[in-house]
Amino acid sequence: MKLYGYFRSSAAYRVRIALALKGLTFENIPINLVPGVSQQKSEDYRAVNPQGRVPFFEDGAVAISQSPAILEYLEETFPEVPLLPTGTADRAVVRQLASLIGCDIHPLNNLSVLQTLKHDFDASQGAVDGWYHKWILEGFGALEALLANTAGEFCFGDSPTLADIYLVPQVWNARRFEVPLSAFPLIEKVDAACNALEPFKKAAPENQPDAPQE
Amino acid sequence: MKLYGYFRSSAAYRVRIALALKGLTFENIPINLVPGVSQQKSEDYRAVNPQGRVPFFEDGAVAISQSPAILEYLEETFPEVPLLPTGTADRAVVRQLASLIGCDIHPLNNLSVLQTLKHDFDASQGAVDGWYHKWILEGFGALEALLANTAGEFCFGDSPTLADIYLVPQVWNARRFEVPLSAFPLIEKVDAACNALEPFKKAAPENQPDAPQE
Repeated sequence: MKLYGYFRSSAAYRVRIALALKGLTFENIPINLVPGVSQQKSEDYRAVNPQGRVPFFEDGAVAISQSPAILEYLEETFPEVPLLPTGTADRAVVRQLASLIGCDIHPLNNLSVLQTLKHDFDASQGAVDGWYHKWILEGFGALEALLANTAGEFCFGDSPTLADIYLVPQVWNARRFEVPLSAFPLIEKVDAACNALEPFKKAAPENQPDAPQE
Repeated sequence: MKLYGYFRSSAAYRVRIALALKGLTFENIPINLVPGVSQQKSEDYRAVNPQGRVPFFEDGAVAISQSPAILEYLEETFPEVPLLPTGTADRAVVRQLASLIGCDIHPLNNLSVLQTLKHDFDASQGAVDGWYHKWILEGFGALEALLANTAGEFCFGDSPTLADIYLVPQVWNARRFEVPLSAFPLIEKVDAACNALEPFKKAAPENQPDAPQE
């Protein structure tokens, strides 16, 4: 299995966590998304993934982008360590938490979106930061309310699920943009519980080969 | 089953298509999202769905928002008319197409996003339209390229899948905002094939009880 990613990409980070939780080994191929380098636009990478985005995942005949699709594929193909509960009602709840992050928060805070705000709307860094904070604060507010009904040690009960796989990269990004998280005690508690586990540590941006040495 | 929706909401439209394709009957409860009316913010609706968004779906003990979660729930609970193919590789491809629309296009063109551009970035209607067109054109460009490898009569082969359920509402919205679609012949062809089917017609915005009478 090969994963084309970028240490700081939330969507690649999700896939790394899932692979690590399931104990799967894979080739981790960094694609440098930094503006100016933009390796995702290179001919070499376009030959692998014409859409030129990360993550891109290969497993034999399967070659797909889109982290939600990759994660469901991993769950169906390697069910031994499950990332979804058993019952359909519980699975729906976990997927709801994941989608809240994956659809309502993350797409609005993507690098290409922030750059469009700067270039096409002449937005100052302060205005872009305000945009970033707005979607995280709104989304985390909704998520915190849902977690009051679902969380145990993790987002749903006492073992990690797909919901935690979405949560941890989003919290990592929120901290990077200095979004205050004190209004979200359940989110902070679950994030801490996840980051105490080896698979989450292994998948963290700072532990990737393309992370800058501090 | 109850679906709280809005005739023009893409995400509610997706769920209506899935329910219709599976031949399921449900109570269709309109929530008027028009700015100024904003029924989603009413106390009555907040008592049903504290997050105050649509769609919101109820089936006995299951009460969830987020169309991707609702659609996977319907697929798991009512598998008789499948919306995903059988093999894991094929399922991954269909979910990739769906996520491209559900994560890369639709969240950026949501009503709340367009209003934020106007209010917080002082964007003109022309600039907002430019933003809207940009994400559709980029996303449809990527989708058209993928469809060259996957499409038959529909997005994936010759029967409707989850991918078509995402595509048709996005095309409907693109037309509403007058995005030129001539560069996407496969998208247009698949959209036409879908809209010739009774379940897609039944789910269309103009055929909902809350659509304005023309």
